[in-house]
Amino acid sequence: MKEHKENAVISKATIDRLPLYYRTLKLSQQEGIEIISSDELGRKIGVTPEQIRKDLSAFGEFGKKGVGYYVRELMRNIGEILGLNRKWNIAIAGVGHLGWALANYANFSPQGFDLQAIFDVDTDKIGRYINEVEIFSIERMKEIVSDRDIQIGIITVPAEYAQDIATRFVEAGIKGIWNFAPVKLNVPASIHVVSEDLSVGLSSMSYYLSRQI
Amino acid sequence: MKEHKENAVISKATIDRLPLYYRTLKLSQQEGIEIISSDELGRKIGVTPEQIRKDLSAFGEFGKKGVGYYVRELMRNIGEILGLNRKWNIAIAGVGHLGWALANYANFSPQGFDLQAIFDVDTDKIGRYINEVEIFSIERMKEIVSDRDIQIGIITVPAEYAQDIATRFVEAGIKGIWNFAPVKLNVPASIHVVSEDLSVGLSSMSYYLSRQI
Repeated sequence: MKEHKENAVISKATIDRLPLYYRTLKLSQQEGIEIISSDELGRKIGVTPEQIRKDLSAFGEFGKKGVGYYVRELMRNIGEILGLNRKWNIAIAGVGHLGWALANYANFSPQGFDLQAIFDVDTDKIGRYINEVEIFSIERMKEIVSDRDIQIGIITVPAEYAQDIATRFVEAGIKGIWNFAPVKLNVPASIHVVSEDLSVGLSSMSYYLSRQI
Repeated sequence: MKEHKENAVISKATIDRLPLYYRTLKLSQQEGIEIISSDELGRKIGVTPEQIRKDLSAFGEFGKKGVGYYVRELMRNIGEILGLNRKWNIAIAGVGHLGWALANYANFSPQGFDLQAIFDVDTDKIGRYINEVEIFSIERMKEIVSDRDIQIGIITVPAEYAQDIATRFVEAGIKGIWNFAPVKLNVPASIHVVSEDLSVGLSSMSYYLSRQI
């Protein structure tokens, strides 16, 4: 692999597409595809081949002109760029159905995200385990986050409790928050927040179906 | 509102950003913001103001130079473009935790997505209700999808059953599939498939934290 350009300014839009490239390359690899053109990769993801070449050129040279990208090599390189070759300790706050679903989600662990703890306020749930991961009282958040070196907190509590949980996560020393509650969180600028809105997927579907039906 | 250009070729990347614009405008409106510049909107979403102006210009003229966009008007217009002003009937197949979480997700209904039916194979679940929506046997999918004019099917079954469910949805007359199972579905080209991978959100977080920690 060529080193990627350390000082290149990379847009957030590009960074947000890299996981899509990674995932599509992984599916292609599973289908036995060894080499993929930017046309084919673009068709699968729904971006133009020009966009793909531009995105990937920000990091270095990954393909061969007239041949395409080597699927396994490009996947490994994008994985390195995304930091997926290292291990991240994560915690979930909120054991509703979404929290349960995420705690059982099989695809985090192969990508280096290691669920270390789950937090809730419900005394019926505290002390129980989901897939061998213990549910702790949120009162113990600071202690557990520190002891287990947890870097990423996932918020799946109801909207009205999300800010309190975010503040607790930040005080406990977390660096990034993945927020499923439909509220804007007030956290220090140094904390990276990714907000998930499950209705976004349906909204783009709505656009396409509107033109069709 | 000006009519948007019916024949403009709009990239999938643009379409995929529109729900983000919509959502950010909605949050801004809730904060009492009436006018927003493309700089400010871009900062909140993480795309460049040039990108925003380019994306929105594909549909018509929405802003005033030197003033910005009227939040409420732009939101309504993007909602119309996305087809969010009409009602979509949706169904969920698979009552695991993710299916439960989605069936309880409060944000679909205000955006015009109306959950009409839930399907499962588990006889303990069939006949029960989640938020007043009945769980039916998947054997009744064709009948229910047709009777209730369901256009969008959501797949939250385990990966090994996803293709079977997709085939059943298509045979039942569904037009779009929102797939949470980590497999590529084989469906006719006329069916619009949106695949959701929950680890994408964590992967872009990983990129930012890698550079920070």
